Amino acid sequence: MSNQQLMKHLMAPDSIAVLGASNRPESIGGRPIKFLKDYGFKGAVYPINPKYETIQGLPCYKDISSIPQKADLLIIITKPNSILQAMRDAKARKIPAVMIITSGFSESGDDGKKLEEALVTYARDNEMLVMGPNCQGFVNFDKKVTATFTGALSRGNLQQGNICLISQSGAMSGMLYAMAVDLGIGFSYLISGGNESIVTTSHFIDYAVDDDRTDAICVYMEGIKDAPLLKAAARKAVEQDKPIVAMKVGKSEAGSKAASSHTGALASSDAIVDSFMKQSGILRVETTDDLFDAMKVFSNGKRSDGNRIGVVSISGGAGVVMADACEKYQMTLPKLSGETEKELSANIPAFGSPHNPVDLTAQVLTAYEKFYHCIETVAADESVDAVVIFIGLLEHLKDNLLKAIEDLNAVTQKPILVTWLAATPEIKSWFYEKKIPLFEDSDRCIFGASLLWRYTALKREVMLPIERTGDDLTASVHEMYKGINGFLNEWDSKQMIAAAGVMTDSPIVAADAAALASIAEKLNYPVAVKVLSQSILHKSDIGGVVLNVGDKTALLNAYTSILDNVEANGLASAFEGVIVSPMRPKGTEMIVGIKKDPHLGTAVVLGMGGTMVEILKDSVMQLIPIDKRNAVKMIDSLKSRKMLYGYRDIARKDIDALAAIIVRVSDLCMARPDIQEMDINPIFVYDEGQGAVALDALIKLEV
Amino acid sequence: MSNQQLMKHLMAPDSIAVLGASNRPESIGGRPIKFLKDYGFKGAVYPINPKYETIQGLPCYKDISSIPQKADLLIIITKPNSILQAMRDAKARKIPAVMIITSGFSESGDDGKKLEEALVTYARDNEMLVMGPNCQGFVNFDKKVTATFTGALSRGNLQQGNICLISQSGAMSGMLYAMAVDLGIGFSYLISGGNESIVTTSHFIDYAVDDDRTDAICVYMEGIKDAPLLKAAARKAVEQDKPIVAMKVGKSEAGSKAASSHTGALASSDAIVDSFMKQSGILRVETTDDLFDAMKVFSNGKRSDGNRIGVVSISGGAGVVMADACEKYQMTLPKLSGETEKELSANIPAFGSPHNPVDLTAQVLTAYEKFYHCIETVAADESVDAVVIFIGLLEHLKDNLLKAIEDLNAVTQKPILVTWLAATPEIKSWFYEKKIPLFEDSDRCIFGASLLWRYTALKREVMLPIERTGDDLTASVHEMYKGINGFLNEWDSKQMIAAAGVMTDSPIVAADAAALASIAEKLNYPVAVKVLSQSILHKSDIGGVVLNVGDKTALLNAYTSILDNVEANGLASAFEGVIVSPMRPKGTEMIVGIKKDPHLGTAVVLGMGGTMVEILKDSVMQLIPIDKRNAVKMIDSLKSRKMLYGYRDIARKDIDALAAIIVRVSDLCMARPDIQEMDINPIFVYDEGQGAVALDALIKLEV
Repeated sequence: MSNQQLMKHLMAPDSIAVLGASNRPESIGGRPIKFLKDYGFKGAVYPINPKYETIQGLPCYKDISSIPQKADLLIIITKPNSILQAMRDAKARKIPAVMIITSGFSESGDDGKKLEEALVTYARDNEMLVMGPNCQGFVNFDKKVTATFTGALSRGNLQQGNICLISQSGAMSGMLYAMAVDLGIGFSYLISGGNESIVTTSHFIDYAVDDDRTDAICVYMEGIKDAPLLKAAARKAVEQDKPIVAMKVGKSEAGSKAASSHTGALASSDAIVDSFMKQSGILRVETTDDLFDAMKVFSNGKRSDGNRIGVVSISGGAGVVMADACEKYQMTLPKLSGETEKELSANIPAFGSPHNPVDLTAQVLTAYEKFYHCIETVAADESVDAVVIFIGLLEHLKDNLLKAIEDLNAVTQKPILVTWLAATPEIKSWFYEKKIPLFEDSDRCIFGASLLWRYTALKREVMLPIERTGDDLTASVHEMYKGINGFLNEWDSKQMIAAAGVMTDSPIVAADAAALASIAEKLNYPVAVKVLSQSILHKSDIGGVVLNVGDKTALLNAYTSILDNVEANGLASAFEGVIVSPMRPKGTEMIVGIKKDPHLGTAVVLGMGGTMVEILKDSVMQLIPIDKRNAVKMIDSLKSRKMLYGYRDIARKDIDALAAIIVRVSDLCMARPDIQEMDINPIFVYDEGQGAVALDALIKLEV
Repeated sequence: MSNQQLMKHLMAPDSIAVLGASNRPESIGGRPIKFLKDYGFKGAVYPINPKYETIQGLPCYKDISSIPQKADLLIIITKPNSILQAMRDAKARKIPAVMIITSGFSESGDDGKKLEEALVTYARDNEMLVMGPNCQGFVNFDKKVTATFTGALSRGNLQQGNICLISQSGAMSGMLYAMAVDLGIGFSYLISGGNESIVTTSHFIDYAVDDDRTDAICVYMEGIKDAPLLKAAARKAVEQDKPIVAMKVGKSEAGSKAASSHTGALASSDAIVDSFMKQSGILRVETTDDLFDAMKVFSNGKRSDGNRIGVVSISGGAGVVMADACEKYQMTLPKLSGETEKELSANIPAFGSPHNPVDLTAQVLTAYEKFYHCIETVAADESVDAVVIFIGLLEHLKDNLLKAIEDLNAVTQKPILVTWLAATPEIKSWFYEKKIPLFEDSDRCIFGASLLWRYTALKREVMLPIERTGDDLTASVHEMYKGINGFLNEWDSKQMIAAAGVMTDSPIVAADAAALASIAEKLNYPVAVKVLSQSILHKSDIGGVVLNVGDKTALLNAYTSILDNVEANGLASAFEGVIVSPMRPKGTEMIVGIKKDPHLGTAVVLGMGGTMVEILKDSVMQLIPIDKRNAVKMIDSLKSRKMLYGYRDIARKDIDALAAIIVRVSDLCMARPDIQEMDINPIFVYDEGQGAVALDALIKLEV
C-alpha cells in the first residue's frame, strides 16, 4: 500500500472514469467532470451513466466494462450498495485505483459500517487502492487532476505551488484551500480522504514526501491512523528537509469528544500525540491562522539556523510589540555588533535607534540606497539568524522598499520576513509572487519566524541517533510472569523492574505470621511492612501499611494490625502475606510510569512526586525507545527541574540514576509488550552519586 | 484640564487655524488643510503662512493676529524654536487649544527637552490646552475634523462609527486605522497625542467616555501617564458600560526597554500594570489582532452574561476546533437541554449532531426555515450565553443564511458571532454593515466571544464596593519612625507591622551579652537568635542567625558566634545587638511584600514561600487598598492554592489569618506612604483557626 507506483495511479492518473457522472455541472456527480474540463486535465475522462449518451459534452458510457480503454482511476459517486459491484467491474477492467465520494458508510451507523467492511475486504483481497469512502477527493495541481467536488474550486482558480495540503475534514479542506488562495499560497496537492478505510492520511503524507513538486506538507488532522507509516514518512521528510506541519485538533477533552463522534478515530490523549509528533519530526500548530503562517514561511525554501531575530522597523512602537512577541514565542533579539550599530548610526536620524529592534524612522525609507544599506547591515550581522522588517502604510514609497527587500532576499541566505501593516492589495500580491512571507500583524510575523526555528531545532533533534539500549537486560526479563493476565503484586512487580536493572528497596516476603517470625531476627530495623496482594492496589487506604517498625514485637503487631484491617475490609481472600523492606532515608520523590496509546505506542511518564508537585501537575512524557540523552532531556523539561539540579541549599541529585531508571523502564517495555500499566511511585532520588531507589511498584500484564 | 468644555475646543472645534500651512497637499503642513477640505469640515479653516496669499485655494494669513476671527484650535507645524512665540500669539487671540505636530522636543535630546519644558510652563501658566508636541493629531469623524497628517487618510476614506481609537505611537495610529477600515470598523475618534506633555492619553480616554458617539475605547498604549485620571475615567466608563480595551505593549523586559527608549515613559513592571488595568476595569489585550477583534465585538452593543457558548456548525471538524478554542480561552460548551437537543434532532440529518458543538451538516443550510429554526433553538436555550455560528464557502446559499442570521440577531439579546471561512468580499461587507462580528478563524471567534464575557466579569468585579478598612489602625502607626530615611532593623520593622495588627513572633532585643544574660532565664526555649542591624539585610549569609537554641549556655554561645561572624565580615560598626524569638512550629510558608510603581501606586505581593515555590514563581499582586474579599481572591489566584485550602492529607490552613495580614499590610501602606519597601518573609500559616505569624520583616522608609 505504501508502494509509490500504486499511489501514482491514484494521485497522478493519466485517465479517469467517473461512475455516477452527472450532466448538472453543480451537482456532486457533475463537478469532477466540470472541473476536469474547465481546468484543462490533459488525460482521458470517461463519464459513466446508463441514462445519458453524453455528459457535459463528453461521450458517456453505460457501464465500466464499456469504457474504451483502461482507466488509472475510477471515481465513484453512485449509491452505497452499488459500490461493491462497481469495484468488481473495476477489477475486471484492471483499474488499479478507486476513489469513493459516496457517503453512508461507517460514518452513519452499523449498516454502513458493514458495507464499508465488505469494500475493504474486497479491496485487500484484490490489491485495489481505495480512497474514501465519504471523501471530498483530491486535486493534483500540476496534472490538473480535479478529482473532487469541493465548492472551493467553483471559484475559478487552481493556484499551483509547492504546498501539499491534506485535511481529514472534508469541509475544512475546501475552506482552507480557498482562504490560502486569498493569501497567495499555491499548492501541489489538496487532499481529503474521508473515512480512510484503506488509503489513510499517513499514505498521502508518505506519497507527498516523495513528490518532487511538494516542498512542505500541511495537515489538518483529527486522528492518527497508521502511526508506524506516519512515523516512517516523517523520518523520510526530515531527511529530505521537507517540513510536515500538522494542526491536530481535539486537544481539549470536549474537542476530543467532538472529534471522536465525528471521525470515529479513537482519540488519543493529547500529551502522547504531542510526544509522537515531536519525536517524529512533525511540527504541530494550533489554529488555522497558524497553519497559514506555516504555509507562508515554508513555501519559501529558506531555513533558520537559530532563534535570534534582527528587527528593522520604521516605528519604535512596532519594535516594542516585536520584542514582546519574541518573548512569547521563545525567540530572542540579540545585541548587534558594535560595528553594525556604528554603521546603522551613521544612517539613522538621532530620534531613531541603531539597537535591536532597530528603529530606522520613516525618514530612512525615502531612498532605496539608505534603506537597502540598513537592512543589509542587519542581515549581515553574525548574531542574527533571521531578519524581520516592519513597515506600515507608505504605499507611495513601495517601489524603493520592495526593490530593496527583493535585492536583500536574493543575496542573503537568512530568511527575511516582513510585517507590512495596512498593505495595499498590490503590495500583498507582490509579496505573494516573490514568496517572501508577509504578515499583517507583528505578533504573527514573529510566530512565523519561530516556526522556522522550531522546525530546524526539531529536525536536529530527530536526526540525533537513539543509542541502542536494552542489550544487557537479563534473560529472565523476557520470561518472567509470561502469560499472566492482570496486576502483579508489589513483590512480583519489584522483581520484574529489578530484573530490568531498577534498584528497589529489596523487600522480603512473609506469607504468614510464622514466616514473619522466622525472619524477624535478621532484619535491619526500622522496616516498612505492607500488605501483599495482587488485587489491593491502594494499600494505605485500607490500613495495609505500617512504617518505621522498630523491632520484632512491633513487627508482629504490625502484621496483626494489617491482617485485621484487611479482614475488616472484607479482603481476607486477597491476602497473600506481607512485604517487608528496610526504611530508606527520604530522597527527592519522583514518579516513573507508563501510558499506552493503542495507536501511538507506549510512553514513559516522569513526574515529580509529593503533594506540592501533584498539585502543580509537573510531568513529561516520551515514547519508547528512550536512551540516556532523551531521558536526561525529559528530566530537563520538568518545570521544577531545579529541585533536581540543585538550587540554593538543595544539593544536586543523582540525575544519572534517575535517567537510568527511565531508560530501564523503556527497555523493559520494549522487551515486554504485554506490560499494559506500570507505576513506580515513589522513587527516592538521592544526592549526586548516591543513586535512586524504587519504594513501590505496580505492573499490569495483559496477554 | 479634565474640563470637558475645554477639551471640546480641542476635540470638536468649530474653527481651525493652521500655522505653517503648506501649498503642497502631500507635505506635513499641507495634509491637514487638504483633509479638512476633502472630507468636508464645515467650520472655518485659516491657513497661516507669511509666504502665500492663498493655500490650497483658501485665503492665507500672514500671522496669527491676522486671522479674521478667533479660532477654537490652532495647529502648529512650524520650527521648534518658533512655537513659544506662536503660543503667545494664540493666547493674545484667545485661542484656547493648540496642537503641535512639530517634532524635535523631549523625544530628541536635552535641548528639545528644555524647549518642551518652556512650552509646558507657558501653557500651564496661561491655562492653554496643548496636544503634542511631536504628535500625529486626531480625527473627529462626526465633525470631519481631520487635524492630522497621517498617511492613512490619503487613502480617501473617513469611516465613521462608534469606536474611539487612541494610539500612543503615531506610526501605529494610522496603520491601525487603515487596517480597521479594511475590516469594516468605523470610528468616532482617531487620536495620537505624541509626547503628551499636557494633554495625555488619560485625558483623551476621559473625554471619550463622555462622548455620546463613542461606544467603546480602544487604546494602543506604551506607558501610563496620569494614572489617577485614567482610573477615574475607567470607573466612569464601567458605570456607563463603555468598554476600554488596551493593548499595552512593553510586556517583556526587552519590549519595555524598547518602550522606554521610545516614549520616555518610565516603564512600569508589567505585573503591576496588569493589576492596575484589572482593578480599573480596563480590558487588556496582547496583539493588534486582539485589538481588532475587540473592535468587532464591542462596536456591536450586545453583552454576554456568562462564558457558555452554543456552537452551531456545518462541519464536525469545525466543532472540534471550537471546543479546543473554548478550553484555551476559558469558555465552556454547555450541554444543551433535552428539549433543545430533541428539537435539533428533528431537523438535522443522522450524520450531524444535536449536541453542542452542534453539527447541522451542510444539508440544513439549503433552506432558510430549517437553518433559522436551528440557530434560534440554540440561542433560546437557557444554558447558552452567546451563539457562535460556523460557515465556510457556500456563497451560493448566502441569501438564506444571511437573512436567518440577521433575523436571529434582531430577536435575541444574546451576542451572535460568526466564523465564515473563505467568505467572499460581498459577504464580509454585509457583516460589517450589520455590525455582526465576523471572523475568519474559529479560534479568533471564540477569543472574540471571550472578550465579551471577560468584560462583563471585569465590570462586575470593579463594581463591587471595597470595604472601608484601616479605621482601627493604632494611632502609633501614623507616628512610628516618622522621618526616618532608610531600612528599619528587624525589631523596628516588626514593631511597625505589629502596630498595624500583624502578629509577629514577639521578639526580644538584647543590645549586648550582658543584656542577653539578664533575660536568658525568662525565655521559653528553644529560641532563635539573629543579628540585629539596620544595614545587614541578609542575616544568614554572614552567619548572623542561630536557630533552635536550647538553653542559656547555648544562647550565650550563639551570641558570641554571631558577633564573631559579624566582625569577621567587617560589619562590627553595624552591630546593634541580637533579637531573640521563641522557635515557632513550622507552618505553611508564605511571603507578603509590596511593590511600588512611581505611576501606578503600591501593590501588595503575596507568594508561596519555600524553595519549591520560589522555583515555580507562584505569586500574585494587587494594588492597595485591599479589603478582605480581595485578599481572599489573591489567595485563590495562587497556582498552588490547594496547599492552603487542603488537599489529600494536607489540612486546610487559616485563610482568614493570611487574608487579614494582606489587609493589614494594605492598611499600613495607605497610612504610611513613606513606606518604600516591605518584605514579611516568612509567614507561617497554621491550620484553620490556628492563625498565622510573621517570623521576619523588613521595612524601608523614605521621606
